[in-house]
Order: sequence, then C-alpha cells, then structure tokens
Amino acid sequence: MGVLDTINGPQDVKRLDNDGLAALAAEIRDLLVSSVARGGGHLGPNLGVVELTIALHRVFDSPRDPILWDTGHQAYVHKMLTGRAGRFDTLRQEGGLSGYPSQAESEHDFIENSHASTALSYADGMAKAMMLRGETDRTVVAVIGDGALTGGMAWEAINNIAMRKDLPIVIVVNDNGRSYAPTIGGLAKHLAALRASRNYENALGFIKENLGRVPVVGTPLYETLHGVKKGLKDILAPQVLFEDLGLKYLGPINGHDVAAMESALRTARDFRGPVIVHAITRKGMGYAPAENHDEDCFHSPAPFDIATGEERPRAHGWTNVFSEEMVRLGKEREDLVAITAAMLHPTGLAPFAEEYPDRIFDVGIAEQHALTSAAGLALGGLRPVVAVYSTFLNRAFDQLLMDVALHRLPVTVVLDRAGVTGDDGPSHNGMWDLSILQVVPHLSIAVPRDGERLRELLGEALDVADGPTVIRFPKGALPEDVDAVGKLGGMDVLRAGDAADVLIVAVGPMAEPCLEAARLLEAQGLSATVVDPRWVKPLDEALVLAAGAHRLVAVVEDNGRVGAVGDAVARLLRDNDVDVPVRTYGIPQRFLEHAKRSSILTRAGLTGPDLARSITEALAGRAAAAERRRG
Amino acid sequence: MGVLDTINGPQDVKRLDNDGLAALAAEIRDLLVSSVARGGGHLGPNLGVVELTIALHRVFDSPRDPILWDTGHQAYVHKMLTGRAGRFDTLRQEGGLSGYPSQAESEHDFIENSHASTALSYADGMAKAMMLRGETDRTVVAVIGDGALTGGMAWEAINNIAMRKDLPIVIVVNDNGRSYAPTIGGLAKHLAALRASRNYENALGFIKENLGRVPVVGTPLYETLHGVKKGLKDILAPQVLFEDLGLKYLGPINGHDVAAMESALRTARDFRGPVIVHAITRKGMGYAPAENHDEDCFHSPAPFDIATGEERPRAHGWTNVFSEEMVRLGKEREDLVAITAAMLHPTGLAPFAEEYPDRIFDVGIAEQHALTSAAGLALGGLRPVVAVYSTFLNRAFDQLLMDVALHRLPVTVVLDRAGVTGDDGPSHNGMWDLSILQVVPHLSIAVPRDGERLRELLGEALDVADGPTVIRFPKGALPEDVDAVGKLGGMDVLRAGDAADVLIVAVGPMAEPCLEAARLLEAQGLSATVVDPRWVKPLDEALVLAAGAHRLVAVVEDNGRVGAVGDAVARLLRDNDVDVPVRTYGIPQRFLEHAKRSSILTRAGLTGPDLARSITEALAGRAAAAERRRG
Repeated sequence: MGVLDTINGPQDVKRLDNDGLAALAAEIRDLLVSSVARGGGHLGPNLGVVELTIALHRVFDSPRDPILWDTGHQAYVHKMLTGRAGRFDTLRQEGGLSGYPSQAESEHDFIENSHASTALSYADGMAKAMMLRGETDRTVVAVIGDGALTGGMAWEAINNIAMRKDLPIVIVVNDNGRSYAPTIGGLAKHLAALRASRNYENALGFIKENLGRVPVVGTPLYETLHGVKKGLKDILAPQVLFEDLGLKYLGPINGHDVAAMESALRTARDFRGPVIVHAITRKGMGYAPAENHDEDCFHSPAPFDIATGEERPRAHGWTNVFSEEMVRLGKEREDLVAITAAMLHPTGLAPFAEEYPDRIFDVGIAEQHALTSAAGLALGGLRPVVAVYSTFLNRAFDQLLMDVALHRLPVTVVLDRAGVTGDDGPSHNGMWDLSILQVVPHLSIAVPRDGERLRELLGEALDVADGPTVIRFPKGALPEDVDAVGKLGGMDVLRAGDAADVLIVAVGPMAEPCLEAARLLEAQGLSATVVDPRWVKPLDEALVLAAGAHRLVAVVEDNGRVGAVGDAVARLLRDNDVDVPVRTYGIPQRFLEHAKRSSILTRAGLTGPDLARSITEALAGRAAAAERRRG
Repeated sequence: MGVLDTINGPQDVKRLDNDGLAALAAEIRDLLVSSVARGGGHLGPNLGVVELTIALHRVFDSPRDPILWDTGHQAYVHKMLTGRAGRFDTLRQEGGLSGYPSQAESEHDFIENSHASTALSYADGMAKAMMLRGETDRTVVAVIGDGALTGGMAWEAINNIAMRKDLPIVIVVNDNGRSYAPTIGGLAKHLAALRASRNYENALGFIKENLGRVPVVGTPLYETLHGVKKGLKDILAPQVLFEDLGLKYLGPINGHDVAAMESALRTARDFRGPVIVHAITRKGMGYAPAENHDEDCFHSPAPFDIATGEERPRAHGWTNVFSEEMVRLGKEREDLVAITAAMLHPTGLAPFAEEYPDRIFDVGIAEQHALTSAAGLALGGLRPVVAVYSTFLNRAFDQLLMDVALHRLPVTVVLDRAGVTGDDGPSHNGMWDLSILQVVPHLSIAVPRDGERLRELLGEALDVADGPTVIRFPKGALPEDVDAVGKLGGMDVLRAGDAADVLIVAVGPMAEPCLEAARLLEAQGLSATVVDPRWVKPLDEALVLAAGAHRLVAVVEDNGRVGAVGDAVARLLRDNDVDVPVRTYGIPQRFLEHAKRSSILTRAGLTGPDLARSITEALAGRAAAAERRRG
C-alpha cells in the first residue's frame, strides 16, 4: 500500500513527514503518467505542479480556503489529494472523472470553465464576499500560469485586486515559462529576468553591510537609503511589475521544493492582503519524455507508451489539411500572415511559421488582441488568417463584430474544434460559433464537409476582400471526400431525390449522416434531396425556390440548435413568404458532460437512422395535420 | 475670419506660430462648446485634448502616419484640424458629422468602433504590416486614455508591442485621471504617483552632479552607477510599470503645453520603436462649467446653456426607475451588491453607491472582470447585479456563458441602452443581446415594457437562484405604463382579439406600436391579440397552443432580427409541430448610421401603421397561397 492510498483528503497530506512527502510526490507522478498514457489528457502541466499542490494543501484549509485553478487542466494533483486518486482509471471517460475541476465531483472544486485567465477575477469576487460577510479568517488562493497572465482578463483582475489592500488573496504564479508554447511578450521577459535573479537577496546582504560607507548627499536620510538600496537591487533584479501596481510580491521560489513553497505560502497567507507568490516550476517535471519534449512538454498527449513516450499516432485530420494549405497559400500570396493565440502547434500553424517566420504572430493567450491586431494588419494591407479553437473565439466576439466587421476588413478566422469535441467537457465544445456569428454584418461563414472542401473554401475565403470570413471544422479525423452530383446556385447537391418529399440541408461534416438518412428514407419510399450550402452565411437564395418545391425542409448541423443555420434557413423562407415546414437538428442547447464525440452526436440524434426516423415522423405529422384540416 | 477658418488640413496647423496656435486653441474650444451645447455630444474629453491634438498634427504626417483615437469620442478636435470644422453644425445629426471617427468622412480616420481599449491592438497590427511591407519611415500613433488602460485588451496589446523593439508606435497616454468617472485600480495609483513626480528630472540633475562623491563598493562600475541613479529616481518617482515590460517611457508631460508636447512627440517619433508618451491633461479644460462638473466633467452632456452650463432637463427614464429600485431593494436584501464598469452615473448606480458604499464595485472599463468577479461574489454567497450598456456586454459574452451560466450562478445583468440608441452610431446600438444571449444555457431574459414591469421583473430576477438573469431596456424616456387585460400562462395579454387572425408577440417596449397595429387591423376587420411574454427566454409554453389557434404569429422586437426572439418563437412552434406561419419584425441586421432612435425605428418599419400593413399583407399572402393550393 502506497502513501497515496492513505490520502483521503487534505488533512492526510498535512500529516506527512519529509519522507512521506517525497514518496507521495513520486506516487502521484506515476499515477499521472500511467493515467494519461492510457487515455490521454493533460500531462506536462500536472507533472509541473506536484510539489506546489502538496504545499498548498498543507498550508491552506480547503475548501474553507478555496483553491482556484486557472484553466483547470493542472488540477489533477489537486483531485488526487482531495480523495479522487482511486478514480483516475476513469479519467475523461463518460461518467468518470472530468479532466477539469467539477463541483459535482468535490466540494474542493470551484471553477469548471477551462478558458484561461479567469481565476483572479473569481478570487476578487470571492474575497470581497468574504470581507462583506465578515469571514475574515478565510483566504482565497488562485493558481495561475505565467501564460495565462498574458490574457487581458488577468490584468483587469490584478488592477482591481491591487486596489483593495484588505483582500486575503494569495496569487500563485506558476511560472514554467510557457502555456502550451513558450510564453510571449513583455511580461514573459520580465518574469524571465526575475527568474534569473534568484540570488539577489544574498547579494543585497553584502551590499547592506557596506552601505554605511555611502555618504548621503540628499535628505531625508531614510528614504535616500531605501532608494539606494532599491537602486542596487535593480542592478541584480528588475523592478517588480506587480509592486508598481501595489501588489506584494514574494519570490522567486523553487516550485519543486515543498518546504520552500510552504514557507512562502504561509508568509503570504499571514499577510492578510493580496500577495503574489512567484513559483518557478518545470513543465513535465520528473518524466523524461515530457521534460525533453520540444513542442509543448507533453501538454496534452494522445495515449502513449510509458517507457518511450511514443504517442499513439493520430489520424490525418482537418488540422493537417489546413496546415498544409496554409504553407501552400503562403507561397502564392506574399501578403498572407497568420495569427495564433498561444496555439502554434495545436492549430497547425507551426509549419507555416517555419516556412515564413516573419509572417506568423503568436500573441499569447489573448484572443481579443488577436482579432484586433488582425484588423490592424488588414488595414495595413496584409491578408491575416487567425487560427483559433471555436470555443475561444467567444472571447473575441466584440472584436470580430466591431473592430473587424464594422470596418469591413478582410480577416479570415479559421475555427478548429468546431462542433462537439467531447472529452474535454462543456467549455471545450465548439457549439456556439454558428449561432452567435449569424448576427455579424458583412461576415461570411463557410463549413467544409471534407478535406477537399476545406482547401477550396479557404481559397475562396481569402478572395473575399470586403469583409471577414469564418471557416469552421471539427476535431479529429477527416471523413472521406464526398463529391457533388450537381449544383443548385452555389450549393453542392450531394444527392438528388426523384420526388419532392424532403430537402435536407447538410451543414459541412453532417453530409455523411444526412446521406445515410436519405438512403434510409428512400428505402421507405420517401425521396430526399441532400444539399451542402458550403457557405452558410449568407445563405444561397436558390434555397428558397428549392425549399418551396418540397413538403419538408430539414437542416442538420453540428452546432447548438439555437440561432444557428437551421434558424437562418427558417427565417430566409419566412422572409420570402415560403411557409413550407422546417425541422432543425443540432446539438441540444445544454452544457454537455464529457464523453466521446461520437457518443454525444448519437445521443443528440445526429445519426443517419435517427434523422431518417425523425424526418419520417415529421412528414407523417404534416400529412395527419393536413388530413385534419381537410376533414 | 478666425484661424480655424484657415485650417483645411494638418499642413495648415504646421504653419502656425505661437500666437496662431493660442488663437486656434481658443477658437476650437469655442466651437466645441457651442456645437455640443446645441445638440449634445462629448465635451469634456475633447476640451482636454485640444493642445495634444494640435501637437500631434504638427509632429506627424497624417494620414501617412495614422493617428488612432481609442474609444473615438475625443476625436472632435482631430476632425476640426482635418478639414471638418465647417460641418460641426451637423454634428451627430442624421446625414451629418459622426460623433466618432469615420472612414467615410475622412482619410485621416481609421477606428470607427467606440468601444474602449482597442487602439493599441490596431496599432500593433498596422505597425507590423508597415515593417513587413518595408514602409519603415511611417509611424503609428495611438491615443488612449488612462481609463481605457484598465481594459484587458490594452494589456494584451502592450504585452505584444513590448516584444517588438522595432515597431514604430507612439502610444500617447492621455491621462486625466478619469474615464467617465475617476480611473480605478492599481494602475490609476501608479499613474497618480507618476503625475506627482513632475519635477523629478530637475531633482535628478542635482543628484547627478553630486554622484561623483558616492564611493562605489561593487562592480561593474557602470551598472552600479546606473543602478544607484535608478534608485535615487525611485525616491522621487515610482519605478515605471511600462519600463518593467520593456517599453520606453517619456513623461509626464503637460498635455496643455503645445511646445512641450511637440518636443516629446518628436523624441518619441525619432526613437523608431514603441514609446509611451505620458501626457497629463484636464478633462473639460478651458470651460469652467465642465472643469467644475463633479460627476464626469461634462463627459457627454445633453444640450445646455453656454453661459451657465445648465443642461436641458432629461426626462425621467428607464435608468431612473432602475436606479430607484436598486436603492429600495438594497434595503430589503443585505446580500445585494452592484457592479459597474466605470459607468457609475450613466447606469444609475450612483444613488445605490451613496446609500451602500460597501456594496458597490466599480471595476474600471473591464467588462470581462465585471462578470467573472460577479461570479465570484455569487459563489461567495452574495447577490450581484451587473449594470452595463447592452453593447458593452459583447465584451463579456464568454464570461457570462462560461464563468456565470456554466456554474449556474445567480448573477443579474441589467442592460441599459438595449435596442436602437441612434445618435452614437453603429457601435452603440444595443441590437445584439437578444440574439447572442439566446444560446446561453440556464440564462433567463426579461424585457420590461414599461417602468412598472421593470420594477416587477427586477424583483423576479433577483428571486432566481439557480442561474443568471438578464433584464434589458432601451435608452430614453419611459413610455406610459400599459396594464395587462389578462394572462396567458405567465404572459401578459395586452389586448384580446375576438377572432383568430393574428397573434402579436410584443417584446417589451414594442407594446406601444403593436397595440396601435392591433387597433388599425381591427379597423380593417382583422382581429389581433397582443401578448407581452415578459420573460422571453425561456419562452412560455402557453405560446404554443395560442399560436396554433391563429392564422399568423407576428413577433416584434427592438433588436437585430437575426437569432432573436422572433427566431426563438418560430423554433418553439416548429419543435412542437405547430406549423402556423410566423413573421418576425426587428432591426435590420446591419450596422446603422447615426440618426435619432425614432427615425431608425420608423425606417425599420417598427411603427403601428407599418406593422399593420405588413401583417395584413402576410395574412393576404397566406390566403392567396391557400387559394392557389385549393385551385
């Protein structure tokens, strides 16, 4: 029986001696590696916070002192120390442990959202509430990566927290010099300089001894001395940004030294005001293949071989097609530039960056800036492509609307992970874009159904000169290419029915289940025509006539049902006084628990057989209703 | 003929001598005051940047050197100096000068969006484009207020700009210590400390002379000297935040001294890398009633009397009802807290703040933080109300979705200026909320039709404990209260038709034109029932049966037509297999040029007569279509 087996909660962590702590850390690392090797998940970030998390649970009294994990994917160790180590064989499986904090799992969990840079704002609110309610002995702890500090929300929160000297907030900056990729920007340089200055306290000691020799030329004495001391400190370490803002700063601390971390955290806790504890950690610490992994320290590997670190090969997917096409287009168009928000590899832009190093901009976890900087690039005469996961575009909705679309700027936004992603739970599903983007004037949206269409549509998007374009595609492997059998306006006809029962509008990758549904309907003697609009905004006017010639229109999409393409088709028909019944199929408008993408799509009824059944019922219902009206 | 009459563009500003400049500044102030006195507009901010703008146009070569105005409402002087002084009698009138920069008006204008904190991101993109295109002699200038620096986007941009030592960007921080209200947070304190240190350069001169007397105890010599110098500087001025990040800093400069500003701007321009020029200005400068105006230095007054500064009284409006109700509810509920993003007065929260100073949080221009801090307050057991203009909520969509709704937190968001606002142009209209908020699970949305309903619905919203609520109301004067004549489920029946021709769903303040349309329809022998759903999300299931009993359903709302309540009603009916025709009326999904609210609503057909006409046609079209089917 190992030490980890004896840990049922933070109180058990507090009881351990040094040997127990060392053994615990080693067992946690083993469990992290074996769990993620089996089913995938976040590895590098969690290996980096083993000692830091142990120290947190020894110093603070969770959940009375809430520990808030920014972004959430580095909370695995926290889960193990709060009674969930035994369930790690179910990690990220349907019905099993979530890959993020989860209030349903534990009273020790608070923030379920996986989007970065939120924890400091939560901390601000929770600490203010504690003060108002007179719970003055509690402390809020927020753990945030240096990468997440590049997000504007974090700045907004720091600016607010710095204003309130009374808020008992301990901000642990988990500084490993990277988010997915190395952290960028002025802040990163500042942190690097702080990291490089580890021994400045020793040096200061020496100088202090010698300070008596400095004749003081000004007055008052104390301030001058203090000033000179600060000046000398500047020789060795840069002034600390956070102190300029009025926040107390402790560090840098070796984040892998439990005793040092505990000591700093106790000091911070007892300060009873906002404090930054700057912990230096190593992403992937203790597992060589992760430590030595160039790309992202095994940030979030597929299942892998523990001995070698070799990942199970991933299928050639949508991202690869985009990646290759960008390299090709970069050669054709010298004005093509690309922007990523700290996701150079996951978005597939790394090959473009290698080929055209001057034309790639990694802006950090800063989607707002990504869009508006792209607006600036377009104003400056370049042709920017912003590649981002669908769910993260929500952060930059206002910027796409006001900074890009209002100015009719040619910016192309490429949304990877659009539709159901599954394993990562509710905040990673890209099920919002086809809805909220409908409102944006001047914006065109394309949804490719396969790799060939992705190549085509990316080219078409770059040819649009008078406004922004969006292309969205899902996570995972590519489907087989589906060729068109004809055209209807600008739409591809994928299957032409021989009668006028149902017109199925298959949005992008929904072509496959829609074609299956059409075959099943035909087997029942019902004819179905399947069209892929390719561009879903604006919709092709040819849809109006085609729809009017059918008894039913069905729209199928991999997006939340509310406000998406289905609603747009229904509105187009209404506005043209075509009152043919419409049925819309998509993801139920709920936050979806983690599960496989295929499992979620099946449960949503987005399979050939389910669609065929539902369309049959709708046609029958219409017939019955018509019968009633006639009768 | 005055000096201003001779200014046809920046070249004419460059020709003036000192006397000419002084005369020009005085004439500009007169024109600012008289223009805004007549028709309203932004006064305080523009009075504060008269000399700063003159200096900019003397040093830089606009538009080759683009001058970007953050938020845009302080660009009046810029307009005057770029050939538009003669048109100020049309300011903010339909067809006249916009109150913001406008590309259609002038090649000197770039950013039309009025949302804050965007200019630095544009500048980053434009400067990167110049570098890539080899246009190395151009400079980008961004003018940003200290208030806008509290917005996270600005931080994201600074972090990126600081990384590129080669970008020719001059960032002018127009520091008047306020946005609408005094600027808040750690940054504000930092800037205040910098302001207080005006004479530190003189002091440094004295110290430098005496520095030879300091024996140097360490090595190397140069760094030590430099360090000591910085140390002494720290006695007098705090270390400069921006320099920590790696940005060159110049200042503080008296922003009302044209020569001093010119000198600083020339130095900054010639540096050929990113530089911050810290200009100290006074909001309202030169017009006593603005300078002495406590609330917001005449930020954006209604028409006023020039001699006394007395504003034309504003009607008792929606904001007042909300304001009074918050004070009343604050007494009832000790857990009620309120949040504003630098809009204490405009949102009506000032009386609440006065009554309950511990329970108001002004977070600065930081909507993202406002929402997530509210989530934290709710997690901490309080009941937060976030009051914000509708258009600015777009900045915090992701936070409302993920940080609030995913966690089912009871946060109430009160959206003022929802629907058409008009005068302030496309980026101020609150025409997006009813669309994009439809997708948010667990969120309920209320739209009061009058003051009495606003009071009722605010109370109901605060009683919702398991998720967020939104209440939205328009700008301007309150309509008369409209009492219900009956109930249909939870909906108010405002008028019961005696037959089953049309069911009109009147969203909130659209009750008035809908009732007028119903009366006109009745005069033509068509019966209309008018219901106000009160809560438009989720929709009342009673709508399904009621709709099925009519020949037509019409939905009327003061929001963009795409994805809003009309689409939601149509979807509800479809999902219940009720295929009665639906027609939806709202704002066309375009960016709307500035004009009076009433004029825009009329043009959108949202008047009683237009609605009656359109409904009659739809009913006739249906009859004709039915005729065709029978024939």
